Amino acid sequence: MDRIDQYIKKHCSESIEELKQLVEIPSVSAQQTGQADCAALIRQMLQARGFTTSLLGEESGAPVVFGELRGTGDRTLLIYNHYDVQPAEPLELWETPPFQPTLRDGKLYGRGVNDDKGHFANRLLAIDALLAQGPLPCTIKWVIEGEEETTSANLTRQVNADPAPYAADACVWEFGQVDDQDRPIQHLGLRGICYVELSVETANQDMHSGIGGSIMPNAAWRLVWALRSIKGQDENVRISGFYSKVKPVSAATRLLLDALPDEGPALRQQYGVSGFLKGLTGGAPLRLAQAHEPSCTICGLESGYQGPGAKTVQPARASAKVDFRLVPDQDPDEIFELLRAHLDRNDFEDVHIELIAKERPAVTDPDDPFVRMVVDSAVDVYGTPMQVVPSIGGSGPNALFLRHHAFPIVTAGVGHPTMQMHAPNENLRLDLYEKGARHMARIIRRFATHAG
Amino acid sequence: MDRIDQYIKKHCSESIEELKQLVEIPSVSAQQTGQADCAALIRQMLQARGFTTSLLGEESGAPVVFGELRGTGDRTLLIYNHYDVQPAEPLELWETPPFQPTLRDGKLYGRGVNDDKGHFANRLLAIDALLAQGPLPCTIKWVIEGEEETTSANLTRQVNADPAPYAADACVWEFGQVDDQDRPIQHLGLRGICYVELSVETANQDMHSGIGGSIMPNAAWRLVWALRSIKGQDENVRISGFYSKVKPVSAATRLLLDALPDEGPALRQQYGVSGFLKGLTGGAPLRLAQAHEPSCTICGLESGYQGPGAKTVQPARASAKVDFRLVPDQDPDEIFELLRAHLDRNDFEDVHIELIAKERPAVTDPDDPFVRMVVDSAVDVYGTPMQVVPSIGGSGPNALFLRHHAFPIVTAGVGHPTMQMHAPNENLRLDLYEKGARHMARIIRRFATHAG
Repeated sequence: MDRIDQYIKKHCSESIEELKQLVEIPSVSAQQTGQADCAALIRQMLQARGFTTSLLGEESGAPVVFGELRGTGDRTLLIYNHYDVQPAEPLELWETPPFQPTLRDGKLYGRGVNDDKGHFANRLLAIDALLAQGPLPCTIKWVIEGEEETTSANLTRQVNADPAPYAADACVWEFGQVDDQDRPIQHLGLRGICYVELSVETANQDMHSGIGGSIMPNAAWRLVWALRSIKGQDENVRISGFYSKVKPVSAATRLLLDALPDEGPALRQQYGVSGFLKGLTGGAPLRLAQAHEPSCTICGLESGYQGPGAKTVQPARASAKVDFRLVPDQDPDEIFELLRAHLDRNDFEDVHIELIAKERPAVTDPDDPFVRMVVDSAVDVYGTPMQVVPSIGGSGPNALFLRHHAFPIVTAGVGHPTMQMHAPNENLRLDLYEKGARHMARIIRRFATHAG
Repeated sequence: MDRIDQYIKKHCSESIEELKQLVEIPSVSAQQTGQADCAALIRQMLQARGFTTSLLGEESGAPVVFGELRGTGDRTLLIYNHYDVQPAEPLELWETPPFQPTLRDGKLYGRGVNDDKGHFANRLLAIDALLAQGPLPCTIKWVIEGEEETTSANLTRQVNADPAPYAADACVWEFGQVDDQDRPIQHLGLRGICYVELSVETANQDMHSGIGGSIMPNAAWRLVWALRSIKGQDENVRISGFYSKVKPVSAATRLLLDALPDEGPALRQQYGVSGFLKGLTGGAPLRLAQAHEPSCTICGLESGYQGPGAKTVQPARASAKVDFRLVPDQDPDEIFELLRAHLDRNDFEDVHIELIAKERPAVTDPDDPFVRMVVDSAVDVYGTPMQVVPSIGGSGPNALFLRHHAFPIVTAGVGHPTMQMHAPNENLRLDLYEKGARHMARIIRRFATHAG
């Protein structure tokens, strides 16, 4: 692998320049900006490497870029990435503008440098290094969608309508990361998600709070009470049936969790929190709660006057964005129905719910030979064993592919704990960028020639 | 009064032009804009009528304009108005820009045309009509402040530091209005207010909801639970001691309420609500609840992501604006202390409270001779008896004056039920503008010569 590693080292800066071009396009799916431009650039970058490409679903949303590069062997690796990014707000907290990628202190800053444009560019670098040695030893199929951050509605339509193109022997997922001591991590599952907006309208207009406060319904109060009915201070979701399909965590999963380092101290420091919910302090119980139990998060609240000082107004409208993270075998459609029934039963017929996004939970077997190979080939790059984490707290459309094709899905990438994913000052460590490409090149090589 | 009425009729348009000048200055106290400019214009308008004027408290907030015009008699009438306005947001709901006053269909539209610049300009018109006949028969003292909408901190400082200038035999308050059938209303009291901002910070930054949702405290949830602890779905405030100083409503007040028309149908129609809280339908019980019971209103909610689509973020910060309307003998400082104690007792030490504004409740005796005179002189103008409403749901600094001087306070003005006070498309009916000035001129004349 020496020549491959040398190639990667030598061409890292060029690859970062390519990444910068991607980051400069504000492809925020929640705000539907820059999507076509970014898809076109992604496609162009694939074509430059010899991929045959197509754009799918241009009429129905952000285009899905699909690329294929035939290899000499008969095995096929599917790679999944996305070119959309989270909104950059709150803008005032960025040290440099989110869509003007900036290098400082060995890091590249900008929205999407890690999640997920950095991973796309990084994998291109790995493939460049392999192509410099000759044809690829296996076929690469690559799907890069533009709605991952808003839960992949267009990709879902494409895959469900025509799943055949995504057939493969194994899959590399969008991300991968090291822990706070630079030990690589293998994440084998994702939680599902049911993302809803709750909204209430209690009058045809806002009113003076002195007039309406005592006698008219207040949208903000209705929303607060409805939310409180969904989850109480004990953190338990109070929707009847919410937990009924949660599968017990297996003994194998518990063993994996027990073997992992304690994330507690790093999380406490990073987010400036003194403790965790439910009396958790760290270790396997913290990991179990984080990724193997469902959650209910208020992502946003909005009602009435939010400016400075006092406005004595009674709001006619109020809304909240809420995500439910789901674990096997919870189903987002079913959770949505349970939520509606819960609100109706609790005298909240006036609270409207919109299902904004949904994904099912899914996991990969840690004993799969492909997983073992990926974990094994990390040692050479990172100089330390890869930790196997049975599931991560986040979500993604892995279940979408697994519904049609039975392949193992692994993670491998360039992330690190303080990369500020979904937050201001998102960043990419250049040292991990080089390592990520080296690991990816090894995965492709060994995948082509091994059972894994 | 014929010549006075003729003068008013003839000079109404000029007066409206003067009002427009005032409305064009966006003197939003919550946003601290245009205050000095508006105070200067108010002062200039008073000086043009021969008032001696001064600006008080320029260093400590929006200047308080004080004017005095000596009359021939020995009685003194205090008039109270304010030149600040509520924020104009949401701007998109205005049919014409809030600070570009626009005449259409017999109404003037703009922020402050009624609350309260219209009342100031209207009283100037009444005084002009009297001055056209000769010197005023009584002395007028006029205080026009610039922080009424944010509860009068600067005026409070000025009056408490030097109450002597505000000595008077009677007082006309900032507003007055007719009901939905154009019957004039006399409002004799105001509720007090304790306006607070609740805020929670649970981490040093927002985080990915997949990472923090199950294990880290969520500021929005903390806020929701804290709010729910303050008031439940039964509309009862759950703060221990909140109701303990509420005085029972007197039999006289109940009699007044029983004599008033039913506001229910008009309120239902105006705000598009099908019913009222606590099963109220209208009549005296609705009025009792509206103005003689304390209330707790969420005026604004803010946390996390509020843009379009889905952002899977766990907010580190959340805040709510809440007003408590108070009735005799509740005290806003005491309510603030009770709220703090309530939150501490209910495990919400992390919820910070800022006291943004406070005012005590106060009422005037309906049997006062001045009140009777004002009520009586309305008949001639409006052609129908004035309704005596013992208290209005809103608040104002009446208690501030009554702490130092024992005088009756009445209302008289140009408002109407759909004037959209504190809401988009605030408007002033020109027919009521003329009537308001005619009533005010009668009040000044009869006040100078009668016991009332």
